Amino acid sequence: SISFTRPPSVSYLLDRALVRVQDLIPEKADQLIWLRARVHTSRAKGKQCFLVLRQQQFNVQALVAVGDHASKQMVKFAANITKESIVDVEAFVKKVEQKIESCSQQDVELHIERIFVISQAEPRLPLQLEDAVRPDGEGEEEGRATVNQDTKLDNRVIDLRTTTSQAIFRLQSGVCQLFRDTLTKKGFVEIQTPKIISAASEGGANVFTVSYFKTSAYLAQSPQLYKQMCICADFDKVFCVGPVFRAEDSNTHRHLTEFVGLDIEMAFNYHYHEVIDSITDTMVQIFKGLRDNFQTEIQTVNKQFPSEPFKFLEPTLRLEYTEAVAMLREAGVEMGDEDDLRSEYITCHIPLILPFYTMPDPNIPKYSNSYDMFMRGEEILSGAQRVHDAQLLTERAIHHQIDLEKIKAYIDSFRYGAPPHGGGGIGLERVCMLYLGLHNVRQTSMFPRDPKRLTP
Amino acid sequence: SISFTRPPSVSYLLDRALVRVQDLIPEKADQLIWLRARVHTSRAKGKQCFLVLRQQQFNVQALVAVGDHASKQMVKFAANITKESIVDVEAFVKKVEQKIESCSQQDVELHIERIFVISQAEPRLPLQLEDAVRPDGEGEEEGRATVNQDTKLDNRVIDLRTTTSQAIFRLQSGVCQLFRDTLTKKGFVEIQTPKIISAASEGGANVFTVSYFKTSAYLAQSPQLYKQMCICADFDKVFCVGPVFRAEDSNTHRHLTEFVGLDIEMAFNYHYHEVIDSITDTMVQIFKGLRDNFQTEIQTVNKQFPSEPFKFLEPTLRLEYTEAVAMLREAGVEMGDEDDLRSEYITCHIPLILPFYTMPDPNIPKYSNSYDMFMRGEEILSGAQRVHDAQLLTERAIHHQIDLEKIKAYIDSFRYGAPPHGGGGIGLERVCMLYLGLHNVRQTSMFPRDPKRLTP
Repeated sequence: SISFTRPPSVSYLLDRALVRVQDLIPEKADQLIWLRARVHTSRAKGKQCFLVLRQQQFNVQALVAVGDHASKQMVKFAANITKESIVDVEAFVKKVEQKIESCSQQDVELHIERIFVISQAEPRLPLQLEDAVRPDGEGEEEGRATVNQDTKLDNRVIDLRTTTSQAIFRLQSGVCQLFRDTLTKKGFVEIQTPKIISAASEGGANVFTVSYFKTSAYLAQSPQLYKQMCICADFDKVFCVGPVFRAEDSNTHRHLTEFVGLDIEMAFNYHYHEVIDSITDTMVQIFKGLRDNFQTEIQTVNKQFPSEPFKFLEPTLRLEYTEAVAMLREAGVEMGDEDDLRSEYITCHIPLILPFYTMPDPNIPKYSNSYDMFMRGEEILSGAQRVHDAQLLTERAIHHQIDLEKIKAYIDSFRYGAPPHGGGGIGLERVCMLYLGLHNVRQTSMFPRDPKRLTP
Repeated sequence: SISFTRPPSVSYLLDRALVRVQDLIPEKADQLIWLRARVHTSRAKGKQCFLVLRQQQFNVQALVAVGDHASKQMVKFAANITKESIVDVEAFVKKVEQKIESCSQQDVELHIERIFVISQAEPRLPLQLEDAVRPDGEGEEEGRATVNQDTKLDNRVIDLRTTTSQAIFRLQSGVCQLFRDTLTKKGFVEIQTPKIISAASEGGANVFTVSYFKTSAYLAQSPQLYKQMCICADFDKVFCVGPVFRAEDSNTHRHLTEFVGLDIEMAFNYHYHEVIDSITDTMVQIFKGLRDNFQTEIQTVNKQFPSEPFKFLEPTLRLEYTEAVAMLREAGVEMGDEDDLRSEYITCHIPLILPFYTMPDPNIPKYSNSYDMFMRGEEILSGAQRVHDAQLLTERAIHHQIDLEKIKAYIDSFRYGAPPHGGGGIGLERVCMLYLGLHNVRQTSMFPRDPKRLTP
């Protein structure tokens, strides 16, 4: 058995079938297979070396033992392979008498014939994977460590290898796919909106400035203007998935300076509740898709971060703002007529304290045709019917003391015929966090950005 | 018949079924229907007013005539509705004797009973839709105008309403969907990478600077580092769709300062041609999907911008760089051994003049394990096997005279076991431009950004 620490010089014609760890089942017993995996753990014991080999969330026990196929030197070589190194092994699959409780593949182990190091990890890891997935408090008496969040994020490449991280981001990928597939089926068109914009059209606060050749520009706080322009341009129903930027110095569990917005905008016929129908049904389809297709991921995250399964109604429960206030008061919560809500519901007709482009309620001008949506008591969406009349938009902007010159292009978009329309946007990271019952949005952002974190 | 210039006060219970223009076919003859559409053109003639009503690429002729259902005043009212206004009409569908050649619905017209203005356009349009879709040169003798590109882009909301624009951006939406669906089927995971980064990891030139609270940051020129980190983090095969930023003062038909990158990165087993296989097959699936599902859009764009249909081979033709050079020389093209190619093919083993993270060819060090892909003679993808060994990466960076301190986080990502991997990225706008045989990337960017354009 020859061993390398650099990739062997290979021919493209090397047609070696590599088996996946998850496919190592008793039916494969006594087959000689090739496998590429990470060394998860390694333990030498006399003339033997036990390895646990890992691929993502799957792992299997493997054994190098002095005998017909392995020399003393080879056992020693195997024992010296550092944790997290990537190896190719040729091995016989063997059924085991007693289930291997610590591995995902409990019924078989591998008897290694040959082992090659494809990529060697440095011996000292900045964090241990088993510490990074340990639930808070577990093993405290035995002096077992957990890893604090900054250490995890500073070493994200390793932290992302944990079963919990793998599950979170596979589920996140699913949220995007379910969002797009649901809307595509409903006739929505995907659009791409610019992130560099010339004017801070949404008021001006909390905007990042960009040097743009000899001038300055801004990073878009949302695709708001552009998705509305697409409605004015007859795309009828549009969605977009992309980064949004908030220069807000908020250091909380739920704020990021850059996050992924899932945005919807659509023309409607007679009432903005048509928009709410579309949005809530989209959310329900996402929740159903996650429940039906991502149970493994949900369970995996739950092992480290236990939480109640996410519950939802179909159709979604809707409350008028005044109803919600009345219910909260009945439950003993003190609140004013125009306070923000914190509840599990969608509420409509929110007091008009919203952006200038929000349509006032035509019947009760101090209210608006807008809606908030909540998951586990936290707001995840704020949406509204938009003002589609240039004159009314001008009046609203003046009322909000906004500099008309700066929003001229925005207002002009509505001068050549604009259908009644509305929409909303959700933050991908927040939805994933709340769906999984996590407590920090940094857990559901691969490379989070906040006022204090710009790396990795 | 009552007419409004503001949306009528409506109840959510108004259950009026609105018919789509494309569904106005002879089978609907003599039905009384409701329709919402734009006034595309309007022509009064004695006691009648002819309107063409439009929804996206579909339009139908409509008639208001003095008689049982319409008064003189109503005809006058209809005649005064400005072009591009949005109206609701109640009308009888009538079969016509002679085909209406100028409309998409050639076999029927509408006899209007009632008409409401939902949103009124200002009387003077900054550009005429029929001018904006006129092929270059057509109607020049009759003094008919075409619209120059800057006027179109300055008034993008109107320009996007043309049949050509509608088709381009529906096809673009299809490219994204085909890209993602193909890769998802191949087991790739979608990732979201940050756009605000702390260091200009890809060399430092052509990067936009962002003010980030009390410090400075940069806009990512590509998701390069992050997609590689995901490979190091065991996601195995990843893709992302998102904006990339290039602070390059290039004012050409093919450069934008912000465009949408479709990026791929994957671990491979034995040869980087496994990556090329995945990328080229993905491109072929996109081309097939467009050919099979977007013929209407392709034909529509072709009416204004005639071009040869895009041709592709399955599998894609591959040439080694040296083969391509030899072929070009045989065809009489003078070129050096290390010059850039401009051809229709994919080429491999390009001379090593590429970024420091490109893997050198292990056999001929002055060449590299990289590849370019071309469509209609223009490069659309540049990809490569990446260096996955921290030590070799350090050597390459020193060779390229890159400040090691600035790329420390990048290099550190490879210290804890990294599989051999490679990838590539294409620009959404360029692929759409070349597929449709267009000549300016601004035509395939909804709201293009270049050194001189930041609006709308």
